[in-house]
Amino acid sequence: MSTITEINPVFVLHSIKNVSIENREVPKLRDQHDVRVHIEQTGICGSDVHYWQRGRIGDFILNSPIVLGHESSGTIVEVGSAVQNVKVGDRVAIEPGVPCRRCDFCREGAYNLCADTVFAATPPWDGTLQKYYIVASDYCYPIPSHMSSEDGAMVEPTAVAVQICKVADLRANQTVIVFGCGPIGALCQAMAKVYGAKKVIGVDISKSRTDFAKKYAADGVFVPEIAPAGADPVDASRAIGEKIIAQFGLGGGADVILECTGAEPCIQAGVFAAKKEGTYVQAGMGKENVVFPIMMACIRALNIKGSIRYTAGCYPASVDLVASGKIDAKALITHRFKFEEAEQAFELVKKGQEDVFKVVIQGVQ
Amino acid sequence: MSTITEINPVFVLHSIKNVSIENREVPKLRDQHDVRVHIEQTGICGSDVHYWQRGRIGDFILNSPIVLGHESSGTIVEVGSAVQNVKVGDRVAIEPGVPCRRCDFCREGAYNLCADTVFAATPPWDGTLQKYYIVASDYCYPIPSHMSSEDGAMVEPTAVAVQICKVADLRANQTVIVFGCGPIGALCQAMAKVYGAKKVIGVDISKSRTDFAKKYAADGVFVPEIAPAGADPVDASRAIGEKIIAQFGLGGGADVILECTGAEPCIQAGVFAAKKEGTYVQAGMGKENVVFPIMMACIRALNIKGSIRYTAGCYPASVDLVASGKIDAKALITHRFKFEEAEQAFELVKKGQEDVFKVVIQGVQ
Amino acid sequence: MSTITEINPVFVLHSIKNVSIENREVPKLRDQHDVRVHIEQTGICGSDVHYWQRGRIGDFILNSPIVLGHESSGTIVEVGSAVQNVKVGDRVAIEPGVPCRRCDFCREGAYNLCADTVFAATPPWDGTLQKYYIVASDYCYPIPSHMSSEDGAMVEPTAVAVQICKVADLRANQTVIVFGCGPIGALCQAMAKVYGAKKVIGVDISKSRTDFAKKYAADGVFVPEIAPAGADPVDASRAIGEKIIAQFGLGGGADVILECTGAEPCIQAGVFAAKKEGTYVQAGMGKENVVFPIMMACIRALNIKGSIRYTAGCYPASVDLVASGKIDAKALITHRFKFEEAEQAFELVKKGQEDVFKVVIQGVQ
Amino acid sequence: MSTITEINPVFVLHSIKNVSIENREVPKLRDQHDVRVHIEQTGICGSDVHYWQRGRIGDFILNSPIVLGHESSGTIVEVGSAVQNVKVGDRVAIEPGVPCRRCDFCREGAYNLCADTVFAATPPWDGTLQKYYIVASDYCYPIPSHMSSEDGAMVEPTAVAVQICKVADLRANQTVIVFGCGPIGALCQAMAKVYGAKKVIGVDISKSRTDFAKKYAADGVFVPEIAPAGADPVDASRAIGEKIIAQFGLGGGADVILECTGAEPCIQAGVFAAKKEGTYVQAGMGKENVVFPIMMACIRALNIKGSIRYTAGCYPASVDLVASGKIDAKALITHRFKFEEAEQAFELVKKGQEDVFKVVIQGVQ
Repeated sequence: MSTITEINPVFVLHSIKNVSIENREVPKLRDQHDVRVHIEQTGICGSDVHYWQRGRIGDFILNSPIVLGHESSGTIVEVGSAVQNVKVGDRVAIEPGVPCRRCDFCREGAYNLCADTVFAATPPWDGTLQKYYIVASDYCYPIPSHMSSEDGAMVEPTAVAVQICKVADLRANQTVIVFGCGPIGALCQAMAKVYGAKKVIGVDISKSRTDFAKKYAADGVFVPEIAPAGADPVDASRAIGEKIIAQFGLGGGADVILECTGAEPCIQAGVFAAKKEGTYVQAGMGKENVVFPIMMACIRALNIKGSIRYTAGCYPASVDLVASGKIDAKALITHRFKFEEAEQAFELVKKGQEDVFKVVIQGVQ
Repeated sequence: MSTITEINPVFVLHSIKNVSIENREVPKLRDQHDVRVHIEQTGICGSDVHYWQRGRIGDFILNSPIVLGHESSGTIVEVGSAVQNVKVGDRVAIEPGVPCRRCDFCREGAYNLCADTVFAATPPWDGTLQKYYIVASDYCYPIPSHMSSEDGAMVEPTAVAVQICKVADLRANQTVIVFGCGPIGALCQAMAKVYGAKKVIGVDISKSRTDFAKKYAADGVFVPEIAPAGADPVDASRAIGEKIIAQFGLGGGADVILECTGAEPCIQAGVFAAKKEGTYVQAGMGKENVVFPIMMACIRALNIKGSIRYTAGCYPASVDLVASGKIDAKALITHRFKFEEAEQAFELVKKGQEDVFKVVIQGVQ
Repeated sequence: MSTITEINPVFVLHSIKNVSIENREVPKLRDQHDVRVHIEQTGICGSDVHYWQRGRIGDFILNSPIVLGHESSGTIVEVGSAVQNVKVGDRVAIEPGVPCRRCDFCREGAYNLCADTVFAATPPWDGTLQKYYIVASDYCYPIPSHMSSEDGAMVEPTAVAVQICKVADLRANQTVIVFGCGPIGALCQAMAKVYGAKKVIGVDISKSRTDFAKKYAADGVFVPEIAPAGADPVDASRAIGEKIIAQFGLGGGADVILECTGAEPCIQAGVFAAKKEGTYVQAGMGKENVVFPIMMACIRALNIKGSIRYTAGCYPASVDLVASGKIDAKALITHRFKFEEAEQAFELVKKGQEDVFKVVIQGVQ
Repeated sequence: MSTITEINPVFVLHSIKNVSIENREVPKLRDQHDVRVHIEQTGICGSDVHYWQRGRIGDFILNSPIVLGHESSGTIVEVGSAVQNVKVGDRVAIEPGVPCRRCDFCREGAYNLCADTVFAATPPWDGTLQKYYIVASDYCYPIPSHMSSEDGAMVEPTAVAVQICKVADLRANQTVIVFGCGPIGALCQAMAKVYGAKKVIGVDISKSRTDFAKKYAADGVFVPEIAPAGADPVDASRAIGEKIIAQFGLGGGADVILECTGAEPCIQAGVFAAKKEGTYVQAGMGKENVVFPIMMACIRALNIKGSIRYTAGCYPASVDLVASGKIDAKALITHRFKFEEAEQAFELVKKGQEDVFKVVIQGVQ
């Protein structure tokens, strides 16, 4: 399938703030379970930009060049001898993290916690902003013909939202507050509606984002005011939480809080907005340590959980939900770039403008 | 049973720091499900002392005098016409909080969260440091004849530990770190062993308390050193958490953290000492807000839960465990007082000496 | 509110097959938490007919006359002094079983299992086919003005479906097979869709019922053929289960089976149609003992659970779902009778015609 | 390590009832994650005997010769290049089923349900009654030096009991009835005690087995009488269930039923002996279909689950429990044979004498 003359253009992060496109050899299958995917669309994620600008996230540090990108769809062009779930020509969404399959976490079904996961665009692993990407076949999920490649790339953020709702154990007829109306927040709001939530409230400091959220899926939205100078920060956050409850008639608080911002005031407000025995999921990433109303969490017997990456079933569910139209993930795409324009695409995301939701980069043809 | 000439001595908290014994009328049954208990032993709890010294805990404020005490055992001396589960002469442990039975929390089995609970010695409700106490019969649990009245009073803190382990969903063969080696911490350590825990580590800044814990139930104990001046507090807590893990061979962290101190450094150390996907239970009460490593909790997908009071089944389990000798609750009693010496007993507890574990007050005969 | 001259017409089951309307005194509140409801609509349930025709269900035996009916809505006309959740004039749906509130099951939130429940129209307790019905106020749920009294009566079967889905722990994106397309089966199918089920298949031997189910909520329906004479019954049931899986592309089986018929072949087919690790809920009542493929259930690690009555939260959820229009419960009503025609209504239901779904009886005005 | 001259004696099942020892070549590692184990002790399981005598269990059919045996311990003699968890010289217990690691069940942590598991001594896969066995390194669990090789072989049945208790979600202070006092039943009884069970009752028709169970771990034992001729079988089973409850003071029934016989009367009695909301685990294998009191299971809202093989964590827990002495698994071994006597060992187990519990075969030295 690959020929000597073919090349594999890749979008490389060489070092902090230093990216370029370069040509590499077409990568080879590593074992009989691998496939080679011709990448067609790749969404840009905040973590891609973070590595580009700062060179590290937590313990993952850029010590050598990596290819960026991990939200991708494509077409299978080569399959290993043991591959059965896909065949050449299949269009697929790619789950970007392939775990070791052998550690305790993998064996017990928590592969998102596997320390040896090969995760695209996480140092030292190359990502998907290449013409060809090699991945284990079971981390490729066929998409039906009526799903576009952009839809396929949007399966990744959708799967993030599936995992968040799974961690939240979200059930029909619950009330849900989602902090954050960016792509993940908006998808969580839509997902909560799919799960049969009774009322979903989106919260964001950006009026244009809450406007979108209201049209997209939320039953109600809330834009917190800036706390007056000199106010105790936790008191101010408590006031926000209680105002949301009052404004939307949530009684003793919301059944479920999905925190998708990582912002300290949102984290605090979320705790105060949760019902006794409610569930609070931390999904947004932000400051390592925050001032946290731990006694309120204790007295109210909250269930506080972290959501990270995706687990078994998230990708299949995500493909189903996008394919069925229950989740209109493509509606989140606001800007499109060609592969050659990848750096421009990254520059756009970096600016963080309110009207820039999801930016996708078309693959090399 | 009660006669006109009988009186009911009570130990009243009139206002902050102002207590005395006074004589009241013998209280009457309020309805056909009530019983009257002749109180025999009452343990003193930190919350009793707190109301005495400060007049409030959270939203519960001392606006009028209350009788103190809520960890009691006694003998049934009068039963309402509908009572079936106990009879006059039965010796019982008394669960001190009787919920409304009608709110959503009560109906779904989370009666510890009922806002209308009548809880002994919580304003405005009178406690059990009286000769006679009126309570709903189903909140009285018969104790076998071989259990002493002191054992009966110790059913309360034991039930607190049952609830903490229930919230933690503690299972056989797990590793457990308990922060705090006071009465509740020590009981949690013993409870974890009863639940089949593989290894239970007790942590306390008091060497004499960890010495007791080691003899009592813990497989290992740890006394954290004071952080060096100028050290970042969270870094110092992280170091403590990691040192516990290393010293006791807990691999990727403990399966379960039971935080029974409410102290900020312990809360932080607990998060860092938990295994990925581990469970952290906040049971100790302390500062309203603490600096909290929320990102670590998120990335490690921890389950953080609050434990408050007790739920259905905790008292029966606690009676069983004390009756069978699996939990030697009485071993925690270090000091005994007569009813007339109640204020002295409270003074002793207030001092917070390391060798004062559980103090009990004998009832009026 | 009630005057000396008022009377309370009731529809009484005197003995097997012997019913009549008679006038009784207007009933009085029994305690301060009670309310008196003027009944407006009452649906007829199979159990009502069963008591009428056979005089017993399991251990509940008709030894003295009872008033029939338990699926009712009405208007509050009198409230006890302690009632806070409703007031005179409120229109309500009535949960027909009020538990003891004091046994272990009640206290742990499983009040559907309380042995001392006062359940309408279950011997020896009177039902709701009266002008006035006395019930504990917290078992009355206000319905909004846009919900009709018929909608209010339909809250009961809807709550049954809520409980079945709750027992099934039904989640978004699951595949579900519902055996039975009668009122409860159809409501379960609709409920599963509300819960975000990916695919819901309704099964019934009545073509007209599956036709209705297809229009009502199911994604697909299946009418099993009669097993050929001489076929092994379990083999025939297995064939049905496997045919459903094949026909609707359910892969290794359905995630969830809701058995709403109680018929032996359906029970068997349900086990064979379930995915490994799938959940099977027995909700239909039928023969006490059936031939059951227990080894298949074991090897496939199925979760088999029984659903009975309703638990906390079912009625509120049911009111919400009907009020919001997510569940069109009234669409199941095919026949309407006046109170004076109650026996005719029962006769109609007894015939079991395919086109008779839900029959309601208007209250005395 | 292996030399050209070495041979690998194996105990082969050629066809039904036709076994012999033959010499094969020393097997080679298949990939870099494999290890070669020198087998030291192997327990005989009922399934080994079943294949020998009948040639099939369910869908697993003996179409070509297989080596028997799957309960083994041994010493690592060769490791693949990627192996990290064990090294040459380590003594290990071997988990006999290695799943595909790639299917939905494997990825979600239910690898016991993987259809592509390579399971020792299950057609067409060879078992461990060989000098050398090749297996994936992560399915080998080091045992400490104070554990004998016999202890190591007993880790397998112990792990079966761990899984049964895990499926039962067994918790401290529960009451447990175990049907069956053979090796698995007895181990379940001991396991339940380790898990902190309040009362464990063992049931068996063999008096000598219940005598052993009483000494080994059970708090009480029960030998059912033969039902009188002409009695309804289900009624007779119900009587047994109710008699166990009455005799051992289990109130409304046992919290947990562990059915380890597969016998129809035990299955029936188990359902009747379970408490409302109780958990019933089917672990014993027997007749495909049984007459089952499904309505009782429904009305009592039982949780009925199947336990099959083991899941993540069972082997580590089992090694811990045997190593710590909490489970005295070796006490179940009643007979020991040399490798050359393997057929005699099988003959002994086949006879099914009451005094034959667990038979082990020493490996080739």
